[in-house]
Amino acid sequence: MSKRFQIVGIGNAMVDVLSNCEDAFLATNGIGKGIMQLIDMERAVDLYSRVGPAKEMSGGSAANTIAGAAQLGGRVAYVGKVRDDQLGAIFAHDLRAQGAVYETTMSPATEGAETGRCIVLVTPDGERSMNTYLGWSEFLGPDDVDASMMADAEWIFLEGYRFDGPDSHAAFAKAIAATKGAGGKVSITLSDPFCIDRHRDAFAKMLVEDVDLLFANRVEIMSMYQTDDLDTALARAAKEVAIVACTDSENGAHIVVGGDRWHIPAVATQVVDATGAGDLFAGAFLWALTNGYEMETCGRMACLAASEVISHLGARPEADLRKLFADHGLI
Amino acid sequence: MSKRFQIVGIGNAMVDVLSNCEDAFLATNGIGKGIMQLIDMERAVDLYSRVGPAKEMSGGSAANTIAGAAQLGGRVAYVGKVRDDQLGAIFAHDLRAQGAVYETTMSPATEGAETGRCIVLVTPDGERSMNTYLGWSEFLGPDDVDASMMADAEWIFLEGYRFDGPDSHAAFAKAIAATKGAGGKVSITLSDPFCIDRHRDAFAKMLVEDVDLLFANRVEIMSMYQTDDLDTALARAAKEVAIVACTDSENGAHIVVGGDRWHIPAVATQVVDATGAGDLFAGAFLWALTNGYEMETCGRMACLAASEVISHLGARPEADLRKLFADHGLI
Repeated sequence: MSKRFQIVGIGNAMVDVLSNCEDAFLATNGIGKGIMQLIDMERAVDLYSRVGPAKEMSGGSAANTIAGAAQLGGRVAYVGKVRDDQLGAIFAHDLRAQGAVYETTMSPATEGAETGRCIVLVTPDGERSMNTYLGWSEFLGPDDVDASMMADAEWIFLEGYRFDGPDSHAAFAKAIAATKGAGGKVSITLSDPFCIDRHRDAFAKMLVEDVDLLFANRVEIMSMYQTDDLDTALARAAKEVAIVACTDSENGAHIVVGGDRWHIPAVATQVVDATGAGDLFAGAFLWALTNGYEMETCGRMACLAASEVISHLGARPEADLRKLFADHGLI
Repeated sequence: MSKRFQIVGIGNAMVDVLSNCEDAFLATNGIGKGIMQLIDMERAVDLYSRVGPAKEMSGGSAANTIAGAAQLGGRVAYVGKVRDDQLGAIFAHDLRAQGAVYETTMSPATEGAETGRCIVLVTPDGERSMNTYLGWSEFLGPDDVDASMMADAEWIFLEGYRFDGPDSHAAFAKAIAATKGAGGKVSITLSDPFCIDRHRDAFAKMLVEDVDLLFANRVEIMSMYQTDDLDTALARAAKEVAIVACTDSENGAHIVVGGDRWHIPAVATQVVDATGAGDLFAGAFLWALTNGYEMETCGRMACLAASEVISHLGARPEADLRKLFADHGLI
């Protein structure tokens, strides 16, 4: 392959606002633990006024994936919308500084939605409860997708969360057509069980028709295939999608390719903040896959990257992932 | 005492932009290691484009001091100027969420300087090199100082860095007069040896006439009194100022009150980011002093708080400082 990009990600451009809290705070404020919930600007302002001191770090699921692959030295790009405001500048800076291509025309911030943000409440157990104000990222549509960039991608990576935007189905369709038309492949993450409930039919159609690599966690894939048995869900997914990469928390991950299946053990670590685990799993997996590593090695690298990102606050890698892989004899 | 506030801090309102770099990056970009350097907006934009992915956290020297005292449960307030922009909202939120009173009229952000920020480059040794764009905080003047708030303060805490603003000498004079007129006391931090070089005469006059408690580190106090002998500097300072609290890096701190002197050993810790060590030393010291602890205990609490803040990235405390003091048998 000699395409310009190994991976192009499309998703919600977000700055994370990370704050620690006790479990009681979640209950008092009606926040579902461990899930992503969409909030409007009014709720975002109100909730922000209640949370403790915070730290701001670039986030966004697909953006974290791309940042991880970029840190590994991958040739990657990202598509997502921010406003021309300070949070937008922070988001753009952090992706570019990590080595990703991020070309976006930032709309003036004088009116309308601001750059999206996610108030991430981290409880003492390291679990994160996400409150997402989509802001300007909600309006990602076909015009934001550059067909020539997609044609120059070995893989595109679609964030399931983006199904919550009105024009984003069309944007994804345009990206898929351009990518596949030029011989590229399509990966997607289901993002969240509630996201699946909102868009099950659209996901199902896409999995059958378009997707070459499915990322999901245990709960998501069972929700997708409406079964309470993981093996059943994995088997059904493997009939529809060439590669299935399913994370399973402390039980590691399962990779299924047709009739072949690998169980990858998790890498033990102290969980500080679970944010970004799935994102970095996907970033490292795609980087490894596009660099020609064997499937099991892809899975091991992915689990290692996930373990790194949950060992500290924030959804992007801090340790040198290549060094981490080398320390484990993988490269 | 039954004043509303134990401590009111006045200083540069800043959001820190923290990024890791190697020493070579500092040299290549003409950044003095371990010091604070003022930069203009053009340089701020250029430098930001060169640094790696960053994290944004509220900072500002006196604001960190106040945040520390607030976390300890102190009755505290802060005076400093931010703009009505996203970084200004972050700064205001974090202080209020910590429990500090922060009343400011944020000017509309449609024109002029933005909220100040400090690009903090952290090298592998934990040393921090600060590049400060003062922004709107530079324009703190007498109108920003509420005399009735100062009259309601047991102590005010003045940030030496603020001497770099055109109207801030007048603001400090107003604050000092209102505080002293109501029986309150004045503390100041010298902030930085280069800051002392810029304002030595003004500092000298204030130390003799107004200051009841001087915070400085070893280098600063020797610079202030233009001697290369720490004991000489401490003795001279103690003749001018009732309480001298001088930090001395891994050698701990020295407290001098007239003819009495205490050496407080440092608390051993792994230095991750030295940002905020002096700020938290001052915050805990003032909190302890206004709660009636003995001088040596004030010093020990101050050194403990400093050790906490340098053990992680960011200039504000993350661990529960009261619990830390209790674990060391101080409360």
